[in-house]
Amino acid sequence: MSRLTGGDPSLLRRINSAVVLHALRGADARTLTDLTRITGLSRPTVEGVVEGLIGTGLVVEAAPEEGEARRQGRPARRFRFRAEAGHLLGIEIGPHRVAALMSGLDGRIIGAGSRAVPETASADERLERVRAVVADVLRRTGVARGSLRAVGVGTPGIVEADGTVRLGTALPGWTGLALGERLRRSFRCPVLVENDANAAAVAEQWKGAATDSDDIVFVLAGLSPGAGSLIGGRLHRGFGGAAGEIGALHLLGQGATPETLLSTTDEPLHPLDEQAVAEVFALARKGDARAREAVDRFIQRLVHDVAALVLALDPELVVVGGWAAGLDGVLQPLREELARFCLRPPRVALSLLGEAAVATGALRLALDHVEEQLFAVEGTVTARR
Amino acid sequence: MSRLTGGDPSLLRRINSAVVLHALRGADARTLTDLTRITGLSRPTVEGVVEGLIGTGLVVEAAPEEGEARRQGRPARRFRFRAEAGHLLGIEIGPHRVAALMSGLDGRIIGAGSRAVPETASADERLERVRAVVADVLRRTGVARGSLRAVGVGTPGIVEADGTVRLGTALPGWTGLALGERLRRSFRCPVLVENDANAAAVAEQWKGAATDSDDIVFVLAGLSPGAGSLIGGRLHRGFGGAAGEIGALHLLGQGATPETLLSTTDEPLHPLDEQAVAEVFALARKGDARAREAVDRFIQRLVHDVAALVLALDPELVVVGGWAAGLDGVLQPLREELARFCLRPPRVALSLLGEAAVATGALRLALDHVEEQLFAVEGTVTARR
Repeated sequence: MSRLTGGDPSLLRRINSAVVLHALRGADARTLTDLTRITGLSRPTVEGVVEGLIGTGLVVEAAPEEGEARRQGRPARRFRFRAEAGHLLGIEIGPHRVAALMSGLDGRIIGAGSRAVPETASADERLERVRAVVADVLRRTGVARGSLRAVGVGTPGIVEADGTVRLGTALPGWTGLALGERLRRSFRCPVLVENDANAAAVAEQWKGAATDSDDIVFVLAGLSPGAGSLIGGRLHRGFGGAAGEIGALHLLGQGATPETLLSTTDEPLHPLDEQAVAEVFALARKGDARAREAVDRFIQRLVHDVAALVLALDPELVVVGGWAAGLDGVLQPLREELARFCLRPPRVALSLLGEAAVATGALRLALDHVEEQLFAVEGTVTARR
Repeated sequence: MSRLTGGDPSLLRRINSAVVLHALRGADARTLTDLTRITGLSRPTVEGVVEGLIGTGLVVEAAPEEGEARRQGRPARRFRFRAEAGHLLGIEIGPHRVAALMSGLDGRIIGAGSRAVPETASADERLERVRAVVADVLRRTGVARGSLRAVGVGTPGIVEADGTVRLGTALPGWTGLALGERLRRSFRCPVLVENDANAAAVAEQWKGAATDSDDIVFVLAGLSPGAGSLIGGRLHRGFGGAAGEIGALHLLGQGATPETLLSTTDEPLHPLDEQAVAEVFALARKGDARAREAVDRFIQRLVHDVAALVLALDPELVVVGGWAAGLDGVLQPLREELARFCLRPPRVALSLLGEAAVATGALRLALDHVEEQLFAVEGTVTARR
């Protein structure tokens, strides 16, 4: 149980400051009278808090509204949140490409960039590509590197809290890489590394297919599927950060890998050969019987993996993303099979963010980190066993 | 965002009352001086709160310690928490038996009872058996029915928040049964109905194999396995209360049911025929090859189900309970297979509570409900987006 103490003036100031900032962020500009009404704080308190926020650069006086200026002798001063007081980056480091998104403190995207990277690239080569993309985005947006407040990164693998990749078989040299530490050399702000499917789950809830749900599973469908889940609106990472790493499910039971399932010859496909996979799907669409069978086997396996997740977690909504989501005929069988096997089948939707999901989620995680510092006042009064 | 208001005297009184009660519950008896020191509250505040608590019957003056009485002219008054001021019931309603546990407000078990019930019994017959067990426990403990503060119930199936069984194929007449409503006719206090595996998970963390972990999966291993999980110390029910209902997993993939897997003839076993299952396991121990194969198939399936849960949730600890947990050779293959297939294998332990797990968890849920009223003061000051 936390100790209960009397009034803490610095805590009170922080709360009041967060409340005023919150009210300012939700609108273009507000007068002191607006803020007094919205926050329930006294006029002198609001004045003091706004003055303090102007001092930190987070708030600035806005130009008076035109109508206002004409109507009265002396227009009321108006204040606005300075979204440009800081910037955030969301970075995806994937097998085939690296990508970056930039926003101000309001989360609105103001810059983007990406580069292809060979799946065989070493960790050093891949990180060099990341640095190039970031430099490019900074240059094109005209944002100074020192203005970055936090950087989020989404990448395949099990990621430790400090940003070390505990296990990441999809990218060469990834297992054991101190990714967070390596990237922190390029930035003076916090760098947060997250599993790619986890980041995508966060993104779909922020501005994708899951904005109306707090209990979702995001499936990054591909040859080696991954998944991320939100439970009650919070990212569920698992005890060791490995939740949703369902890629090993196919090793159980029948033991057939997706590469074998999708092959139309006796040789399995290469694990990351998306071109070959696309060809199999194209053949199936043209009516090739052997390709059709391969696709059916692949979808059946994906359905099995997703069903296992759904039975374990019971989400409200399953969002399917990753390259396999773009293929014909994935969604319908998934819905049918889930309805057959799940006691309470969830809704199933396609990702709305597509290729941008991972970087968008990484950006959101960076924004969460900064907002926690700016807006949150938690753990104050709670008495429980 | 919640509104921030000034001091609320009734809230403050509730907080102070909870804090004092909490301090009293942790010890045999305490003086006002003890309470002032422990809580940080003023002497007059403590005196007022204790007086109020005596009025509600939750606190009583204790006899002075013997040494204390001799040492001083007038011994300091001492107060203790009255665990006997209210009582709780934890009830299991299973396919083969109903059972009940009773405790005071401190959660210490003071009575228990159980009766066998045929797996073919109707819902009415089963509920009649529950009433008989409860009446028996009340009579033997001498506790008045009116002293019950809350009743927890654990039963197979997907249970709605109001205690209605949405789906419960293990017991005849269970699907659609308004179980909470039916039981509330017998009690004047709140009746909380929970899925049996969920209740068992709570129990193992309270006083079983998982007291040192907040991230656990409890597997109720049987012909139709169920599971319950705690994430960050909180029960994860799922969006529709169906989380962990992995019984349908075997319908995916190979399509073989446990009843088929365990059969040593061409006929599948009856879904709830534990006797037949025990015979197969006994035969296997004696070296019967066909029985050994059947057991291997069954264990392989259980391992698959548990692995799916572990991959989805990434718990720290898996606790295996239910009748299959008592059979030889379940734990070792489970550990080995999890180590093979899971990226970060969890610890695996046998249930310490065995048959008592479900009723114990139901009791804990009832106690949680009452403690929330007695001790918790939440949702007071929180400013977040």
